[in-house]
Amino acid sequence: MTTKIILDCDPGHDDAIALLLAHGNPNIELVAVTTVHGNQTIEKVTRNALAVATVAGITGVPFAAGAHRPLVRTPEVAESIHGDSGLDGPVLPEPAFEAEDRHAVDLIIDTIMSSEPGTITLVPTGALTNIALAVRKEPRIAERVKEVVLMGGGYHVGNWSAAAEFNIVIDPEAAHIVFNEKWKLTMVGLDLTHQALATPDVVAAIAAVDTKPARFVLELLEFFAESYKDAQGFDHPPVHDPCAVALVIDPSVMSVVRVPLDIELTGSLTLGMTVADFRSAAPEDCTTYAATDLDHAKFWSLIVDALERIGDPV
Amino acid sequence: MTTKIILDCDPGHDDAIALLLAHGNPNIELVAVTTVHGNQTIEKVTRNALAVATVAGITGVPFAAGAHRPLVRTPEVAESIHGDSGLDGPVLPEPAFEAEDRHAVDLIIDTIMSSEPGTITLVPTGALTNIALAVRKEPRIAERVKEVVLMGGGYHVGNWSAAAEFNIVIDPEAAHIVFNEKWKLTMVGLDLTHQALATPDVVAAIAAVDTKPARFVLELLEFFAESYKDAQGFDHPPVHDPCAVALVIDPSVMSVVRVPLDIELTGSLTLGMTVADFRSAAPEDCTTYAATDLDHAKFWSLIVDALERIGDPV
Amino acid sequence: MTTKIILDCDPGHDDAIALLLAHGNPNIELVAVTTVHGNQTIEKVTRNALAVATVAGITGVPFAAGAHRPLVRTPEVAESIHGDSGLDGPVLPEPAFEAEDRHAVDLIIDTIMSSEPGTITLVPTGALTNIALAVRKEPRIAERVKEVVLMGGGYHVGNWSAAAEFNIVIDPEAAHIVFNEKWKLTMVGLDLTHQALATPDVVAAIAAVDTKPARFVLELLEFFAESYKDAQGFDHPPVHDPCAVALVIDPSVMSVVRVPLDIELTGSLTLGMTVADFRSAAPEDCTTYAATDLDHAKFWSLIVDALERIGDPV
Amino acid sequence: MTTKIILDCDPGHDDAIALLLAHGNPNIELVAVTTVHGNQTIEKVTRNALAVATVAGITGVPFAAGAHRPLVRTPEVAESIHGDSGLDGPVLPEPAFEAEDRHAVDLIIDTIMSSEPGTITLVPTGALTNIALAVRKEPRIAERVKEVVLMGGGYHVGNWSAAAEFNIVIDPEAAHIVFNEKWKLTMVGLDLTHQALATPDVVAAIAAVDTKPARFVLELLEFFAESYKDAQGFDHPPVHDPCAVALVIDPSVMSVVRVPLDIELTGSLTLGMTVADFRSAAPEDCTTYAATDLDHAKFWSLIVDALERIGDPV
Repeated sequence: MTTKIILDCDPGHDDAIALLLAHGNPNIELVAVTTVHGNQTIEKVTRNALAVATVAGITGVPFAAGAHRPLVRTPEVAESIHGDSGLDGPVLPEPAFEAEDRHAVDLIIDTIMSSEPGTITLVPTGALTNIALAVRKEPRIAERVKEVVLMGGGYHVGNWSAAAEFNIVIDPEAAHIVFNEKWKLTMVGLDLTHQALATPDVVAAIAAVDTKPARFVLELLEFFAESYKDAQGFDHPPVHDPCAVALVIDPSVMSVVRVPLDIELTGSLTLGMTVADFRSAAPEDCTTYAATDLDHAKFWSLIVDALERIGDPV
Repeated sequence: MTTKIILDCDPGHDDAIALLLAHGNPNIELVAVTTVHGNQTIEKVTRNALAVATVAGITGVPFAAGAHRPLVRTPEVAESIHGDSGLDGPVLPEPAFEAEDRHAVDLIIDTIMSSEPGTITLVPTGALTNIALAVRKEPRIAERVKEVVLMGGGYHVGNWSAAAEFNIVIDPEAAHIVFNEKWKLTMVGLDLTHQALATPDVVAAIAAVDTKPARFVLELLEFFAESYKDAQGFDHPPVHDPCAVALVIDPSVMSVVRVPLDIELTGSLTLGMTVADFRSAAPEDCTTYAATDLDHAKFWSLIVDALERIGDPV
Repeated sequence: MTTKIILDCDPGHDDAIALLLAHGNPNIELVAVTTVHGNQTIEKVTRNALAVATVAGITGVPFAAGAHRPLVRTPEVAESIHGDSGLDGPVLPEPAFEAEDRHAVDLIIDTIMSSEPGTITLVPTGALTNIALAVRKEPRIAERVKEVVLMGGGYHVGNWSAAAEFNIVIDPEAAHIVFNEKWKLTMVGLDLTHQALATPDVVAAIAAVDTKPARFVLELLEFFAESYKDAQGFDHPPVHDPCAVALVIDPSVMSVVRVPLDIELTGSLTLGMTVADFRSAAPEDCTTYAATDLDHAKFWSLIVDALERIGDPV
Repeated sequence: MTTKIILDCDPGHDDAIALLLAHGNPNIELVAVTTVHGNQTIEKVTRNALAVATVAGITGVPFAAGAHRPLVRTPEVAESIHGDSGLDGPVLPEPAFEAEDRHAVDLIIDTIMSSEPGTITLVPTGALTNIALAVRKEPRIAERVKEVVLMGGGYHVGNWSAAAEFNIVIDPEAAHIVFNEKWKLTMVGLDLTHQALATPDVVAAIAAVDTKPARFVLELLEFFAESYKDAQGFDHPPVHDPCAVALVIDPSVMSVVRVPLDIELTGSLTLGMTVADFRSAAPEDCTTYAATDLDHAKFWSLIVDALERIGDPV
């Protein structure tokens, strides 16, 4: 049985791989792709999303651009990690199609409200601005989605500050909105994604696929590896965003624990921290979960498998 | 020449009078009315807005309901001031028409984007949630409106806390968004509206109009006077919201000073304070203004005049 | 009947005048002078205090140096107002005596605990670090002092930020401690002291005294006038600190209102604001007061009178 | 070679054991014991410290009481863990001697300033109020102590809130002062002390010592075990405070990592969190360290050894 997802992303190298995984895996039906400011400006990440779709041969899926900036905070982008284009490394093709005129927020609302209740999974892999705007504009989506599985945060790890992760800290108010809604929410954060390293064996396995999309991924990983070495001292780059898609595909790919999660909005050192309360068992009404341990081999085999299924689109 | 306004309100006794003033004054063209949570729930204030429109004989103006809650904070209503219905006192008629299906945020955006640039004045008299959502969803409205004239805040006066006013403090993040956009914004705050007291001579002048809408206003003021006496110790109630409409009608009704304004988001004692910097002359690029002194007689004569023009709608 | 005061100061031009006023007025008995970081470093303000004492011919009063920095915040000084020495303008004499070895905190505690209960008035005119440390080290002083009359803060006026005054904002945690203790505390803030302008007639009256200390004051005021013109755009400089001493001498020199006061510690725009709650009458257990209106003529005649009494010390 | 320590504590069950360890171990010279509000009021913890000293036969060491409350925050005690007396469980003897009249802050300052530079190690095991007051009153102690080894905080673990530990969060401003001074500071936090569990084999080994002080420790542990089971769900109680003493005795008892540490003062969810920045190697000028892994057997053998050396005091 397939799961219908809306991928809300800001490609972004790892977002691009998340999109390829969602498209190539047979258990996922990609019903909409929305973009949000973050790794780069909304114009750049939207163009990147369409270019990646073109590489992957994605057709018939609506794409829409969303929020151009955070709710409250001063906008910032992750140029140190993703370069000036937001997807530096490979040469990007001209997009084969355009984004809808409809705003991402409305595409999200319309898709959820016109689908059967409990059938749509939201998979945000960027700032949570679109999701926050959507649930404030149409509160009924909170009970109508199946769940939210997001890449962002970290209960013991930060990257944009000592205590906070980029996707959350660039729009902490949006994150606060999303983490405090009534839906089931799973945080696939840095604690997990720092295990999703693109090690040499992984790179070799992707190289062996030997298709245009696979070579595209290799070029992404090559740039990403250098960025992460320079900016954060990683030997091999952590490939964050596909982890959230992988959890939707196969829950056995990682361990998840039920734990109260909330977003710090006023901390001087901890702004945007995803505060987890591990002191005792989560209460009955707790709807938040955090990913803890990754099955590295199983995760990367999902990526390789998706690339093999995608093949060489015409 | 008339000014086109969108009234974004949460009736609310003084919102109701603001609506009557906007409708009855010949210099105002009411192009849309939107509602927002605040004095009461979105369902109640929307019903109240339609009921007031029915009392006033407003037709042909689109009404739409907006945000049901603040962006981030826990919702609260002003039952101590406006009663359980949000408009306690008079018996409310069945509304003669319904709100649109369209969301208030979209009605605001569509109205502004389909009008000539620089022609629409936004007049928010409730929480700023709708306006914040609108400008985040469609950033181009910030340069396309004529200006924003809002009731809320206070540079030296608070009511919901020592330092903050109700409309701002119930959704301070929304206020932060609205006060920091590029539009010209005038804050008609408590410093001004605490001068707009419904004194006995005012009440007598309204009674003399002797129409159904005027009697409706008298009933509103009667309840409002008791609320403000009980809850905040006022001898005569301050009638806040029509002050913002009055400034749009006739700038000579009050003094306004250009001053940098911003919203406090992290204060323990000052959350939602509208912080004004009076230390030196406002810089060239300052687009925020604050109302200071009211011409009490001129203000109330605008109200009486509007009621006389409205007469007894059939 | 004279009032015994401990003057805790950071001279500072207006602190110097406060010291002269306290020494020259017959209703004040100066029992100790303590210094605190603020307008300049603790070394400089202590030297300045001793130099002013030498100009004024003060003998037999213990002086002690106190805190070299704020409790928590990064230290800052007011060089833009008081110059590099903290008392730029006049040539300062070599101090005729030295500060005690005892720490200011201990001099404060010892003086209060060895005096009759209810006889010592604390008059802080700088950061509240010493007073905060004293009351935390020896909590019994809170009930043993007569009262605290301080220069600092402002309920509607800021100078170091839009909402905060220098003495408070440089050590807001200390101010929070002092404002929340059980003693009677009167805030003589910017609302009051911005009325204490050294206008030309004031300068002329001081010039007419024609003594060394009076000429010293004239030189202080000359420098102070230029600083305040350049840094904050004042036509005549506000002479803050002697206002607190003046209130101890003669309560009729200004109006004072009882109002709850507290210090904002977490505000982004309002850190160090002295938040006053004017919404209703102060509750019975309220022990904080704020000065509102100054009798300008009476205030300055106290200064002139003190200078005349001091004469030319040998 | 022995290390001279000042133990600043709030007994407290684990503080009591820390005191016994410091007294019984031959590598430690206990030069002063100071008490601070925390687990119970200053009166109770001071009496407890003297009672424990009496049980242990400590003589010739000055004891002094310190701060009765936090710098800024509302006082709170840990009655749920330590009971009404602060040391519930055993019957406490009448203290054989009294605390000095001198304030703890002055005992700390005098001891450090009268000793050779670099010879005194500060070992705080309670709130950091005394240490903060001492270093603000006499800043020279920051360069004169050998180092600070404290029990408190936790880089990934909280107990009094999701993110904060009791000793830190009850006086976060004091902790901010202490963590930001120039001395070498090692945080022995919950990450470490939650490994220091009093397991049944530990209890058996202590029982085997079979002296009065050992039986006293058993009674402490019995009560402590119940408290921790009821309040925080522990199977065996974590015995925090002696861990800090153990690190001074023998660095091989635990692993320590150099990492920037700071205290969150404004967080809504994270107030008092000890924020560690593990993102990259600590910079050259970093003087803060955190304990990570405990050698459980070695730690408890130090305790047993100390009890054996103490024997049965006459």
